[in-house]
Amino acid sequence: MNIIHIDGGVCAPEGFKAAGVAGGFKRGGKKDLALIVSHVPCSTAAVYTTNKVKGAPLTVTKANIADGMAQAIICNSGNANTCAPGGIEIAEKTCRLTGDALGLKASDIVVCSTGVIGQKLDFEPFEKGVPAAAEALSPEGCSNAAEAIMTTDTVPKIIAVEFEINGKKCKIGGIAKGSGMINPKMATMLAFITTDAAITPEALQEALKEDVKGSFNQICVDGDTSTNDMAVVMANGMAGNTEITKNSPELESFKKALSEVTVFLARQLARDGEGATKLVECNVSEAPSDEAAADISKTVIASSLFKTAVFGSDANWGRVLCAVGYSKGEFSVDNIDVSMESSKGSVTVCQGSEHQAYSEEKATEILGEDEIIININMNQGKGKGTAWGCDLTYDYVRINGDYRS
Amino acid sequence: MNIIHIDGGVCAPEGFKAAGVAGGFKRGGKKDLALIVSHVPCSTAAVYTTNKVKGAPLTVTKANIADGMAQAIICNSGNANTCAPGGIEIAEKTCRLTGDALGLKASDIVVCSTGVIGQKLDFEPFEKGVPAAAEALSPEGCSNAAEAIMTTDTVPKIIAVEFEINGKKCKIGGIAKGSGMINPKMATMLAFITTDAAITPEALQEALKEDVKGSFNQICVDGDTSTNDMAVVMANGMAGNTEITKNSPELESFKKALSEVTVFLARQLARDGEGATKLVECNVSEAPSDEAAADISKTVIASSLFKTAVFGSDANWGRVLCAVGYSKGEFSVDNIDVSMESSKGSVTVCQGSEHQAYSEEKATEILGEDEIIININMNQGKGKGTAWGCDLTYDYVRINGDYRS
Repeated sequence: MNIIHIDGGVCAPEGFKAAGVAGGFKRGGKKDLALIVSHVPCSTAAVYTTNKVKGAPLTVTKANIADGMAQAIICNSGNANTCAPGGIEIAEKTCRLTGDALGLKASDIVVCSTGVIGQKLDFEPFEKGVPAAAEALSPEGCSNAAEAIMTTDTVPKIIAVEFEINGKKCKIGGIAKGSGMINPKMATMLAFITTDAAITPEALQEALKEDVKGSFNQICVDGDTSTNDMAVVMANGMAGNTEITKNSPELESFKKALSEVTVFLARQLARDGEGATKLVECNVSEAPSDEAAADISKTVIASSLFKTAVFGSDANWGRVLCAVGYSKGEFSVDNIDVSMESSKGSVTVCQGSEHQAYSEEKATEILGEDEIIININMNQGKGKGTAWGCDLTYDYVRINGDYRS
Repeated sequence: MNIIHIDGGVCAPEGFKAAGVAGGFKRGGKKDLALIVSHVPCSTAAVYTTNKVKGAPLTVTKANIADGMAQAIICNSGNANTCAPGGIEIAEKTCRLTGDALGLKASDIVVCSTGVIGQKLDFEPFEKGVPAAAEALSPEGCSNAAEAIMTTDTVPKIIAVEFEINGKKCKIGGIAKGSGMINPKMATMLAFITTDAAITPEALQEALKEDVKGSFNQICVDGDTSTNDMAVVMANGMAGNTEITKNSPELESFKKALSEVTVFLARQLARDGEGATKLVECNVSEAPSDEAAADISKTVIASSLFKTAVFGSDANWGRVLCAVGYSKGEFSVDNIDVSMESSKGSVTVCQGSEHQAYSEEKATEILGEDEIIININMNQGKGKGTAWGCDLTYDYVRINGDYRS
């Protein structure tokens, strides 16, 4: 299947518009309110954080899309509306306000909040912000929306792809945010994905649920699983393909295109981890199972000691083996090979779980690049898995030692 | 029961001597070889890391104390003898050399190594170092031994206590090391504990296994479970009490005194975490079970976001609730109270899982101290648990970004 990257993000699929405005949740007139709207109702699927402490907007969104349908997403940044008084009521009021501005029912709105936990979310910025966002809606609005959902992110994360189903051109677009408190479990940080493919809510939910296991759930910045993680896909069917159901052979094509979008966004989240200077990809092969490989790769990229070594361009593979060793599950650790690579080349640093002679100079050069790949061959099965993370730097400490001020 | 703190560390109990010398494993003539010897054979118990990658010395020690008995501990720092060629053979040779120097069998020796993983451990430094250490053995040797097992530790960790069993004065002494790669699971970093109490190997093993759950296993510096964690207790019986068995009522008294030693050492390990400026204690109460409380307290002190907030003296309790929420197990998060305290006072920052008005100025003053206590009341049961950790600082990144050079 041919998947082509195109411009436009969430507005690339037919019938979607977006906007991002400054509502006043953040200081300094920064954009902090995003709105994404479809021309027609959408099959809608979502996955949420597994944190037992959940943001109020998640509860409201879950209720609103219980029927598998929605038509718009409203999201503020700067305050997570979590562990704060009146959270549910504020989220519900936001849906009513957004519905009124768009001529939709409150129950057709997906509502999200991201930012600091535990402070009451002011409703007043919505009162001016929502109508302003509705007014600003445009097919070119994606970059403003992507900017408006950022917190400590340094760059917006945007993607769109084009592919064919039953000879019909379909598109999927997505934006995401997330930089700290990143260790998604069964869900993700905020990711908003749109598509004009026709697909039933059930098939869409199945595709998303399966997808996140290998995309958003395989990234880690700091091991902290957020209270507000959420990934939403809205499919408005305007591409005109025969509707994809759970049993359609076309579901596989849709999943492939969806994965292209989510893995791209997941990598961008990892690369923009708080304070990060490097994107780290860890590929595990020949593990006893795919599940074991996924666990091992994620455990390695989550290790603080490994992350600081990457920051220091130090090929300290002992820390890689240490992390492999405390990964979940049963497997042998007696015959592990480890290599490190980047655009500067590749070097094998460990073979058969023991030191393999290599040039430290070459290793330092390889690890000095801003995109590093660690390959781990477990030599015992056919399981494969990949995870993405970043280095642990002085700036992570600086950003989080003084986040609220 | 009366437990009195005394001087002398591992040499405080009757019949123990210790030494620490510079063998040449570390650069710059630093002490790096520790020896602890009992006058008579000892009941010996140990717990080890659960990391699947294990240091060679652990395998050799496990075999040597399979009979429940040992008489000496030899430990080098600077190289972990893990994932390195000929590790088992080198550890066995070290035991033979140590036995020869002391007139003991090789199988009476506990052998340990700590330091970098994946580099071949040179045997040559043992050849001069072991006889030199045997020569230097002294009842005043504990502080040298404690210094010789340090890696990135900034201070040696030493304790001894005195208590009575059957009217006989008994003593327990201990030393420990550990600063990074600290997230012990079922075992600990290196801790060497001596006692002159008479106790069977079985009772000693039971006491130690139970003890570590509430002491060493409840500390976390960086979430990385080491490959070389080990805690050893040697009991030589020279106090002259009636030997304690699994069924003795005196076992409880022994456990209490042991816990006094291990919790002290565990707190010292946490306080001396790599780059740490603050010791953090997290007490969880009214949880559904002790196990849940232990998990919650450890999850909170392990959170990178919480640790950086403590470094910044920021009472960011939202991060505490976030970590509580992703702790294992089933419990309600709807009615949680959180307070923060230090020698400067106490402040309640969250009540009923929502923001509680408090003075930020006062909170910052409290968190500015070097020993911080976080109290979490789950308001739903009788479970209690405590964990210890430290803040995450620029120095952690500095130390680990360039550990090997």
